[in-house]
Amino acid sequence: MTAGANKGAESGFTAIVLAAGKGTRMRSDRPKVLHALANRSMLGHVLAAVQEAGASRLAVVVEPGREDVAREIERLAPGAGVHPQAERLGTAHAVLAARAALEGGQDVIVAFGDTPLITAETYARLRAPLREGAAVAVLAFEAADPTGYGRVLTEGGRVLAIREEKDASEDERRVCLSNAGLMALSGAHALSLLERIGNDNANREYYLTDAVALAVADGLSVAVVPVAEAEAQGVNDRVQLSQAEATIQARLRRGAQLGGATLMAPETVFLSVDTILGRDVVVEPHCVFGPGVVVGDGCTIRAFSHLHDARLMEGADIGPHVRLRGGAVLGAGVHLGNFVEIKNATLHAGAKASHLTYLGDAEIGAGANIGAGTITCNYDGVSKHRTQIGEGAFIGSNSALVAPVSVGAGALVGAGSVITRDVPADALAVARGRQVTREGAAKTLRQSLKAAKAAREAKKG
Amino acid sequence: MTAGANKGAESGFTAIVLAAGKGTRMRSDRPKVLHALANRSMLGHVLAAVQEAGASRLAVVVEPGREDVAREIERLAPGAGVHPQAERLGTAHAVLAARAALEGGQDVIVAFGDTPLITAETYARLRAPLREGAAVAVLAFEAADPTGYGRVLTEGGRVLAIREEKDASEDERRVCLSNAGLMALSGAHALSLLERIGNDNANREYYLTDAVALAVADGLSVAVVPVAEAEAQGVNDRVQLSQAEATIQARLRRGAQLGGATLMAPETVFLSVDTILGRDVVVEPHCVFGPGVVVGDGCTIRAFSHLHDARLMEGADIGPHVRLRGGAVLGAGVHLGNFVEIKNATLHAGAKASHLTYLGDAEIGAGANIGAGTITCNYDGVSKHRTQIGEGAFIGSNSALVAPVSVGAGALVGAGSVITRDVPADALAVARGRQVTREGAAKTLRQSLKAAKAAREAKKG
Amino acid sequence: MTAGANKGAESGFTAIVLAAGKGTRMRSDRPKVLHALANRSMLGHVLAAVQEAGASRLAVVVEPGREDVAREIERLAPGAGVHPQAERLGTAHAVLAARAALEGGQDVIVAFGDTPLITAETYARLRAPLREGAAVAVLAFEAADPTGYGRVLTEGGRVLAIREEKDASEDERRVCLSNAGLMALSGAHALSLLERIGNDNANREYYLTDAVALAVADGLSVAVVPVAEAEAQGVNDRVQLSQAEATIQARLRRGAQLGGATLMAPETVFLSVDTILGRDVVVEPHCVFGPGVVVGDGCTIRAFSHLHDARLMEGADIGPHVRLRGGAVLGAGVHLGNFVEIKNATLHAGAKASHLTYLGDAEIGAGANIGAGTITCNYDGVSKHRTQIGEGAFIGSNSALVAPVSVGAGALVGAGSVITRDVPADALAVARGRQVTREGAAKTLRQSLKAAKAAREAKKG
Repeated sequence: MTAGANKGAESGFTAIVLAAGKGTRMRSDRPKVLHALANRSMLGHVLAAVQEAGASRLAVVVEPGREDVAREIERLAPGAGVHPQAERLGTAHAVLAARAALEGGQDVIVAFGDTPLITAETYARLRAPLREGAAVAVLAFEAADPTGYGRVLTEGGRVLAIREEKDASEDERRVCLSNAGLMALSGAHALSLLERIGNDNANREYYLTDAVALAVADGLSVAVVPVAEAEAQGVNDRVQLSQAEATIQARLRRGAQLGGATLMAPETVFLSVDTILGRDVVVEPHCVFGPGVVVGDGCTIRAFSHLHDARLMEGADIGPHVRLRGGAVLGAGVHLGNFVEIKNATLHAGAKASHLTYLGDAEIGAGANIGAGTITCNYDGVSKHRTQIGEGAFIGSNSALVAPVSVGAGALVGAGSVITRDVPADALAVARGRQVTREGAAKTLRQSLKAAKAAREAKKG
Repeated sequence: MTAGANKGAESGFTAIVLAAGKGTRMRSDRPKVLHALANRSMLGHVLAAVQEAGASRLAVVVEPGREDVAREIERLAPGAGVHPQAERLGTAHAVLAARAALEGGQDVIVAFGDTPLITAETYARLRAPLREGAAVAVLAFEAADPTGYGRVLTEGGRVLAIREEKDASEDERRVCLSNAGLMALSGAHALSLLERIGNDNANREYYLTDAVALAVADGLSVAVVPVAEAEAQGVNDRVQLSQAEATIQARLRRGAQLGGATLMAPETVFLSVDTILGRDVVVEPHCVFGPGVVVGDGCTIRAFSHLHDARLMEGADIGPHVRLRGGAVLGAGVHLGNFVEIKNATLHAGAKASHLTYLGDAEIGAGANIGAGTITCNYDGVSKHRTQIGEGAFIGSNSALVAPVSVGAGALVGAGSVITRDVPADALAVARGRQVTREGAAKTLRQSLKAAKAAREAKKG
Repeated sequence: MTAGANKGAESGFTAIVLAAGKGTRMRSDRPKVLHALANRSMLGHVLAAVQEAGASRLAVVVEPGREDVAREIERLAPGAGVHPQAERLGTAHAVLAARAALEGGQDVIVAFGDTPLITAETYARLRAPLREGAAVAVLAFEAADPTGYGRVLTEGGRVLAIREEKDASEDERRVCLSNAGLMALSGAHALSLLERIGNDNANREYYLTDAVALAVADGLSVAVVPVAEAEAQGVNDRVQLSQAEATIQARLRRGAQLGGATLMAPETVFLSVDTILGRDVVVEPHCVFGPGVVVGDGCTIRAFSHLHDARLMEGADIGPHVRLRGGAVLGAGVHLGNFVEIKNATLHAGAKASHLTYLGDAEIGAGANIGAGTITCNYDGVSKHRTQIGEGAFIGSNSALVAPVSVGAGALVGAGSVITRDVPADALAVARGRQVTREGAAKTLRQSLKAAKAAREAKKG
């Protein structure tokens, strides 16, 4: 967030977010605005950006009966108004579904739940002209190919009209400045303009865009605020969803890099909106960060690692092929090697688990060494139980620790053991079968297995 | 496939596929046309496309003695003629190696085994002009840089000539419309044109392109059919092979996305030509789909998963780091976690295997819980055997199930067990060593290990 | 390396590499020039390229007191001079910190530690004009947007001046040919030019660029040598670091592909500068090659594999999800499946380890079969020990081999065993607990676990 983005906070504005679209082209049972980018719903991105831009009042227009959307709003912006749009009669009609939020005369920004890339800074810029006397401000972009967009016709920086493609003259069609749909309306004029919008058109819909013509006719000033075409991009299908994801990922990666993290191949690393990477963190190619990950300074995350809800202290070195989830906490200098999963477990400083291990619902003391193939048996089919391993303990490879169980500090568990009872500090515990070796028996067994196979096949054939 | 692509099916055509090229720049022991894109050979792509476009007769011209190419043709298009080209005397000579296929007077399309991106729809478009009286139709693209290509000289939509770079005037070199090499010839003229092509040129080769000049000289109509340059791209080395792969992957991903699957980062997901993803499937970044994968509605495939010959029913949730292969079938709502491999096994609805598990040659009942580190020991060194686990059974972590073996419904296997005999329904089976714990022994052992190490090092030094 | 790049080797030149920059924008505790690309430090890339171009004398100007940089130079170019630059007074001042290296009258190339993409061939081209009489040669690129760069003003191929942006006329600003900073100076003039450079400018710094004006004023010839803008790109922050990585990876991948390796999705495969891939090697998407990997002809590396310090003989087939490191050697036709790690171990021809296995400090005989979940317990908490497995041995699944231990040729280890004593050839060894099965006990246990859970929850509530 830039400092400027918050300027408007002193005198907040009302943000009306239109989020009632069906999203048919998504071919989904989930409402379009709940589809996620960088592990946050599109609606969540919009709500976060308008709040960061200084919105003091939020109103979201939704499809009636969508409990899932209402829950998401409650989760992300508890004070926001939720306004069902009973009939679908156009964008201006949708805005007026939130009429209650328009009363009080605050400036208004109309945002869309499916243009999730608009930044807080852009929302703040969109509002700025209202403070300098404009009644309306429209967001517009220079389209590489404007075909199909409404053209924004301007003179001396002021908007004369927004001309739909079908009504445009040949000259007007050559204009590339295109309407992004977002609009800011000054508190003094918003309600009056919106109420006068009619539906005298082919589709019998009330179009928000018509506020521009009304304002111009009233002799009011209408400003245009530029935005990059990529930022204005809406999401209507899953191809566009993945393009928006790419844009957001590029922003997140760049931020992490400029903050001092090496992403060897940023295009292969996927971050969440809340991922925090410290200074001199190195991330190898092909890593995925789900929500809730904080990585301390100097950590190394090797390839093919998948992190979610995890905290790594300074100098932890993990992967390749590590999975962290559900409350994994790694102390300073912890080392995890390949095919290791940590869930709801804390490993204290310098602990090591280098291969093929699952530690769940556990606490591992500082400097403990967890051998390859160790598994905490935390679930008995009914409940989850905890495993406690003391400082400097050594768990031999291929051991199973049947929770609830504890292994004391400095204790040693022999390889291949199934530990079902607590092991005191400095004790040695072994729980495995005795080795029986029968000379020559492999040869005999192999012969009999082959004979049995031949017999089976003879029977079939 | 578009509806239009099949129009010609009623009166099919003959496709002659030239597949005898050496492909020296591939630097491979494998014939060029057998190199694969999206897990189908280039030749396979061409054969599939011409068949989809309505080819009723197929002839493939091959390098003599290439059994592997012949087998691939037999596998993909059992009725196709296979015509060895004994000498390499140019493209027209190659086409005449399949002279038998030219008899009967059907329209002919000459396709190339190393331009695998041409779609069925393009082959159908290439044939279309023949139905409107053209004797020949050539496929051509607007080259970004035409240097080196034969230029297609036209007037009023009809081809006047194809001019090779070296013979072109300065004006002609400015033409960007370039010959893609593919050609359709009407049944009435094909053989007569092909037989008259001579080899009066520097290389003493018979060039298919010369059919154009012959047709024009005969006063016949030669049409040009446009194609995008990317689609016309041939494959001559492995850089071009990977570029073609990228083009095909982009098509497959786009199809999956528009059909209702979320690919968070499509550029990191690799599909096969036959991959089927249902509605509201979510695929995280970095997944690879080999041949034979069908994913039902609402499934989630997490990062780093590798699927091949597998079927997932509705709502299955797998990964990250899952490997499915060789006949894996996952019932509705099955959950697989990290570092889990399934081979030739069926997991019925709601079964779970969350970590570090190998299930091979097995059937797992509905709702069964397979603990971390469970392994089906399906191979005795001679034969493979099956493991049967009943509905609602619970397999404790780090267990080995030595097949052939069955665990009954509702049965429970204790953690760390090696199960060698059948476990009846609702029974509890444990097969592990007893735990022996010796107080203080870890300390003593560690000291003696250190002393031994010091002694070894003293001896060396 | 092209043949031409070595032409100058007969009469070598002196390369002075400026590597003292602070690199503040990297936000790193590590000096900028030690940040790595394709697993070689940027400084390492520059030292390798100038040596390959024929430098017979190397001098590196470093920040005083940076032991890590000195060590890297000692490691990569043991004979190179290391010259601390005590004060930071500009590039010419930095070059003169290596004054000792300038004596003797050899031609000089001034290179930069943070332009790691310049190739040996370009360094050779930069020197070439000196042999045709030029006193100075400057490297220059056509900038897409030259804003901020010093413009190279030329006439008839000779440099008239290098004009800084702020001093440039409107016409001069339209020049896109921009100074890359690198310079070659003839032995006859280098010292005299460098010593005359003054600091009569706003920053009171000595600029290497001023050598051009001095040479022109002396009536000496100054040549310009073109380079692609991408190659001239410097690295100042981690975004640029990742862009440089992408450029180097593209070069390495292309080399591997043209050499006969199939990279299905080259953009997802990360190589090291020393990676060697044989003919008809197939690399699936998403693989990472660390330093020291050699892959023989016909090998297949499946997705999500991570290799480092490993050697694969002809026809080895590994992955997906394989980790090789620390001296892994795989014989011809070795097969490794998913979730397998090999460290400091040799697998002889035809050995197999298909799932969930760790083999460390081991030697595995030809044709041996290592069952799923096998783990070599190579560490006793104090020392590492070796495991020896004979030809054709069969290790049952989920076994732990407690090193030091050996399993003889043809021997068989039963599934789930913990092997602590040597197994002779052809013997059968089993070391596991006996199975005890209690009818109906699972039902009873489950009921009591549920009752206990209910009691716990009642207590809490």
